Amino acid sequence: MKNRDVRMRGFIERQEVDAVLALLHSRIRPLGVETVRLEEAYGRVLAEDVVSEIDVPHFARAAVDGYAVQARETFGASSYNPIEFTLVGEVFPGSPFPQPLQKQQAVRIMTGAPLPPGADAVVMAEYAEERGGKVNIFQPITPYRNVGRQGEDIGKGEVVLRRGRRLRPQDVGVLASIQHLTPRVWRRPTVALLITGNELVKAGEERIEGTTKIVDSNSYVLWGLIEQYGGIPHRKGIIRDHYETIKRAMQEATEDVLLITGGSSVGAEDFAPLILSEIGELLVHGVAMRPSSPTGLGFLEDRPVFLLPGNPVSAMVAFEAFVGPTLQMMQGLEPHSIYPRVEGVLKRKVTSAIGRVDYVRVRFVEGNLVEPLRVSGASILSSTTRADGFIIVEKNSEGFDEGEKVEVYIYR
Amino acid sequence: MKNRDVRMRGFIERQEVDAVLALLHSRIRPLGVETVRLEEAYGRVLAEDVVSEIDVPHFARAAVDGYAVQARETFGASSYNPIEFTLVGEVFPGSPFPQPLQKQQAVRIMTGAPLPPGADAVVMAEYAEERGGKVNIFQPITPYRNVGRQGEDIGKGEVVLRRGRRLRPQDVGVLASIQHLTPRVWRRPTVALLITGNELVKAGEERIEGTTKIVDSNSYVLWGLIEQYGGIPHRKGIIRDHYETIKRAMQEATEDVLLITGGSSVGAEDFAPLILSEIGELLVHGVAMRPSSPTGLGFLEDRPVFLLPGNPVSAMVAFEAFVGPTLQMMQGLEPHSIYPRVEGVLKRKVTSAIGRVDYVRVRFVEGNLVEPLRVSGASILSSTTRADGFIIVEKNSEGFDEGEKVEVYIYR
Repeated sequence: MKNRDVRMRGFIERQEVDAVLALLHSRIRPLGVETVRLEEAYGRVLAEDVVSEIDVPHFARAAVDGYAVQARETFGASSYNPIEFTLVGEVFPGSPFPQPLQKQQAVRIMTGAPLPPGADAVVMAEYAEERGGKVNIFQPITPYRNVGRQGEDIGKGEVVLRRGRRLRPQDVGVLASIQHLTPRVWRRPTVALLITGNELVKAGEERIEGTTKIVDSNSYVLWGLIEQYGGIPHRKGIIRDHYETIKRAMQEATEDVLLITGGSSVGAEDFAPLILSEIGELLVHGVAMRPSSPTGLGFLEDRPVFLLPGNPVSAMVAFEAFVGPTLQMMQGLEPHSIYPRVEGVLKRKVTSAIGRVDYVRVRFVEGNLVEPLRVSGASILSSTTRADGFIIVEKNSEGFDEGEKVEVYIYR
Repeated sequence: MKNRDVRMRGFIERQEVDAVLALLHSRIRPLGVETVRLEEAYGRVLAEDVVSEIDVPHFARAAVDGYAVQARETFGASSYNPIEFTLVGEVFPGSPFPQPLQKQQAVRIMTGAPLPPGADAVVMAEYAEERGGKVNIFQPITPYRNVGRQGEDIGKGEVVLRRGRRLRPQDVGVLASIQHLTPRVWRRPTVALLITGNELVKAGEERIEGTTKIVDSNSYVLWGLIEQYGGIPHRKGIIRDHYETIKRAMQEATEDVLLITGGSSVGAEDFAPLILSEIGELLVHGVAMRPSSPTGLGFLEDRPVFLLPGNPVSAMVAFEAFVGPTLQMMQGLEPHSIYPRVEGVLKRKVTSAIGRVDYVRVRFVEGNLVEPLRVSGASILSSTTRADGFIIVEKNSEGFDEGEKVEVYIYR
């Protein structure tokens, strides 16, 4: 066993948050492309520019209920001098009118119905009066009035949605309307969750009362976060703190990303950094941030491996800082916060150290007044459930004064 | 057939947006309660206060790596006068130390390991020096120092999460840590999507070139929105504009909510409002809003039925205004916008009418400068894909001037 060696190794020189992000930017590439059905396209990221091959609509149609006419035949009409048209039928959405309009003819038309051949405008029902087989028009209209013209929504050849776009409900609707039924999107990264720790048991698996075991909560927090960032979590069970066991688990994981929790400090049983340095690359071990300073990062056959602290708050913060952006980049997105931001005013001062980035959980106490929750106690998961969100103290800041305005990232 | 009757009915008196929301508030109740496994609990809404039945942690543990001692035996220690302890072993997370500490004994301890019986504090490794079977302590510490006390995270009997809370990843983690494995949550509403219109074809089902058919896009937009609001969409196909066909589809739908698109105007083929007034209650038909003024609302055996305009932008806006809040209330949530809000500055003025609520799609053009997209053209679905979000002009406002600050709801 290498207990003594590991304990003595200590951390590689501690790196700054910016440097770790720059490293990720330089190494992470989008995964492959796949096609999906529209039903599965929500939230996915386009890997192509989508060009419409059709006009939408592909025929001129009525934008209101009324009477389809040839506009120039209404010129001169007024309430005193209505112009009379012969009503030759009606047209509904989905059914074309069979014959072209003749001179001074009108057709009753419903919103969305195709304009009869020969008609070029629609008189709204309120400017017309129907009587017997005739209709009187009380207002002149110009051509194309109240008509949805061909291609008005989307023109043939138009780029409808661009590569890199995360598809919203209306985007999927537009893809349907141009019959682009299998969009090409970036593949979602699979993420292996390797939870290490002899003290951990899976929730519900054993009684812990009277033992010194604790229930694994990290895998549940990380599972939810992975999904929020568009990844596909794979649970790999709880892994004993044993060199060969952890090594085998790391070597057998085929996922796009490996998350290893616990075992990233410099305690005696922290094998993961050592193993990563042996079978892959250990590039970061220790980051100038609070909490989560023991975070590690490396690569195994070009797949990113994150060594997350076992403390639940630290694991969560390190995920937000590094894993989330990685999952976004793998899906062809620029890294961005998934949390809405609002302005808050600090109820109590927050201190930090120059050179270190602090992530401080906060709670809204009244209006936009926010209270920082204890910054120590990274093992206190309930502090993240009491928190409404967090603020970030950047590396060049010593913190914020009481009453200072801060940007609060709201957990969702 | 009742064409003529329907056409003549016109709208029930147009109602204000607030009045429709008040009606929904008075009629909508949360659906039943169900239990889910933790894996399915993300995003669900608690229907119970969760009380912890255990202390977390349920034993005192080391918060740092170091040496477990009895604090009072360190009193008087300094760098000049270290106090010597006998090192009697080490303790790792998950394994209790077998025997109680005797006088002037210390145990090497790792973060997270249970405190040996008799120890009450942990001296950090940097204030100690190990040599042979002895360890010298250079600093006095007080009891409980560097110790995570029993129940420090969560106390037995504590209310951990309250009813009505939408579960975030860390909340599910906390449920795991207290072994609350089957939380009681509100049932998610099922939503029947009844898309009516003779002009519509399902995406990919037929060639539309050379016909006067158009592709149904509404069902795709609504599907995604229903999911974003926590509902479970059920597609009921495209329904012909025929009195008996629509009536049968409405009667056969067993979902918690019915959405009927198209057929909510006062055109000749608009059967849905008539049918609803015959077999259920039609309470709203016409709302003082733009777009979406033809929106209708009623109940069928106490299940809400929404008549959404067939125009895609109108359908989307009416969904946001009324259906989304309804789905939230059915899940035990207060209605709230699911869109992050940011401040924008208008590039062009926006006019509205007193008494009417306008939903204006906008696009960011530079920095926080937002440009209103055309407010006419509710059939222009691509305006919602070009839009970054929307602003709301409340009923007592005539609009906003160029340069005025507005709150922008960002689509996601």
